[in-house]
Amino acid sequence: MSNTTSPQHYTEITVRARYAETDAMGVVHHASYIVWLEEGRTELFRSIGLPYSAIEAAGYYVLLTDLQARYLGAARYDDQVIVRAELAELRSRQVVFGYALHHARTGAPILTARTEHVLVARATGKPTRFPPDVLARLQQSLGAT
Amino acid sequence: MSNTTSPQHYTEITVRARYAETDAMGVVHHASYIVWLEEGRTELFRSIGLPYSAIEAAGYYVLLTDLQARYLGAARYDDQVIVRAELAELRSRQVVFGYALHHARTGAPILTARTEHVLVARATGKPTRFPPDVLARLQQSLGAT
Amino acid sequence: MSNTTSPQHYTEITVRARYAETDAMGVVHHASYIVWLEEGRTELFRSIGLPYSAIEAAGYYVLLTDLQARYLGAARYDDQVIVRAELAELRSRQVVFGYALHHARTGAPILTARTEHVLVARATGKPTRFPPDVLARLQQSLGAT
Amino acid sequence: MSNTTSPQHYTEITVRARYAETDAMGVVHHASYIVWLEEGRTELFRSIGLPYSAIEAAGYYVLLTDLQARYLGAARYDDQVIVRAELAELRSRQVVFGYALHHARTGAPILTARTEHVLVARATGKPTRFPPDVLARLQQSLGAT
Repeated sequence: MSNTTSPQHYTEITVRARYAETDAMGVVHHASYIVWLEEGRTELFRSIGLPYSAIEAAGYYVLLTDLQARYLGAARYDDQVIVRAELAELRSRQVVFGYALHHARTGAPILTARTEHVLVARATGKPTRFPPDVLARLQQSLGAT
Repeated sequence: MSNTTSPQHYTEITVRARYAETDAMGVVHHASYIVWLEEGRTELFRSIGLPYSAIEAAGYYVLLTDLQARYLGAARYDDQVIVRAELAELRSRQVVFGYALHHARTGAPILTARTEHVLVARATGKPTRFPPDVLARLQQSLGAT
Repeated sequence: MSNTTSPQHYTEITVRARYAETDAMGVVHHASYIVWLEEGRTELFRSIGLPYSAIEAAGYYVLLTDLQARYLGAARYDDQVIVRAELAELRSRQVVFGYALHHARTGAPILTARTEHVLVARATGKPTRFPPDVLARLQQSLGAT
Repeated sequence: MSNTTSPQHYTEITVRARYAETDAMGVVHHASYIVWLEEGRTELFRSIGLPYSAIEAAGYYVLLTDLQARYLGAARYDDQVIVRAELAELRSRQVVFGYALHHARTGAPILTARTEHVLVARATGKPTRFPPDVLARLQQSLGAT
């Protein structure tokens, strides 16, 4: 009934900034972080037993429809960055993820972000409802009981 | 006194989707559009006589601090996409840009976005006020009189 | 009978270096040029009436199998770069392209490159021979008569 | 006199293919692997006590001047790929690296590559000799005695 005893599930991965991801300002380019969010999301899906590749194999795409990011600091080449990802909201056809990135060594914040996604059927490209088994796993991740 | 007679200044560029910018869904990856926004911003700066390279040469960086994007459609390989960029808000240390992307051929919308930026001094990395000449050009672009 | 009167066909496009394509050295990252080669190749295919998207629509992929690049200079943010592409060699199942990149303003050389490709059937992923009509267009581009 | 007793030093890292690194063919785009080579090189430098960031801090850049890659197979989204990197040749102003990429699970080959680099002084942009301490570490990695 309550999720006070179900702390939010999240995953953390460590990404090391590649030289190719930096720009002429000497720091990681702002679009590179967006790719790291996706890598965090991939691990979150895997951690709940729903590898994203299996979702595609089952005939779906999880399309990104909205992206919000706030840049709080910068990573430089070879910095190790913790990418924390969690499932923030869940509806019958939509899922929202939240992210926080910080420096592994200092803990200094780098970015917070939020992405909205819809499930679409690969065959039609149309938004569709999550299949019950997928929904069940997502709900479990959300801590909704 | 009024900017009803000063229609908003904007620039439009045409970007052709590169194969490398697509992903396994067969469409342009969501992070690729973020790079296109930057290309639109570059042209907007140039159009008001303030090439971004000149801003850096004068000792500043225009740092992106916030990004919001709403995905309304998708571009595919070789599609031509219009990237419209405009200056949306201007403060003494901050500038906000708005964007709208649509298919060149059909006019179908692809993305709307908004980015916030602060001016920082390259020497210190600290936020700083826009120099008067830069501010004047930005105000002119904004249609503020 | 001779191709002394059929000078090699080539295409030239102008690419403007994006900020995202630079790295912490302040110049365009070496992998970014590889993407520009592909953009040059796209235009070359289009110029001979064989848009690459049409090749895919006909059931094929043109896979890159070998890449050689020699870096002779560097482009910086906002530099305009000429990407010259030409068909260099043609066999029944393989095509080779040559490239030369130089600064639009100064003519200074940036890169020379060569890529080998094979045609594969999308359905099987196996190498296959060029269909006669495709081969004919490619031969024409090569200046073979 | 002989390095038969000095087996070549190499490093191996595991890279997981990101969705953003795939393209509309459903596999990793050929330019994405080039970025992985750099990640392998970064680990090789680190493994011999010469983190590349320290080389830059000491006033140098290690510029890529030549790239050769042969594509033998393809990685797909979420595949784990072993990137093996080794120092292949060493001269007073030049260093050559060799690479081999294969699937972590199956061992199937994906790519072999070779990159040449020169050392340049950051202050002048001119090629320069390796400082003695850097050269000593590189020679050790090469197994030259």
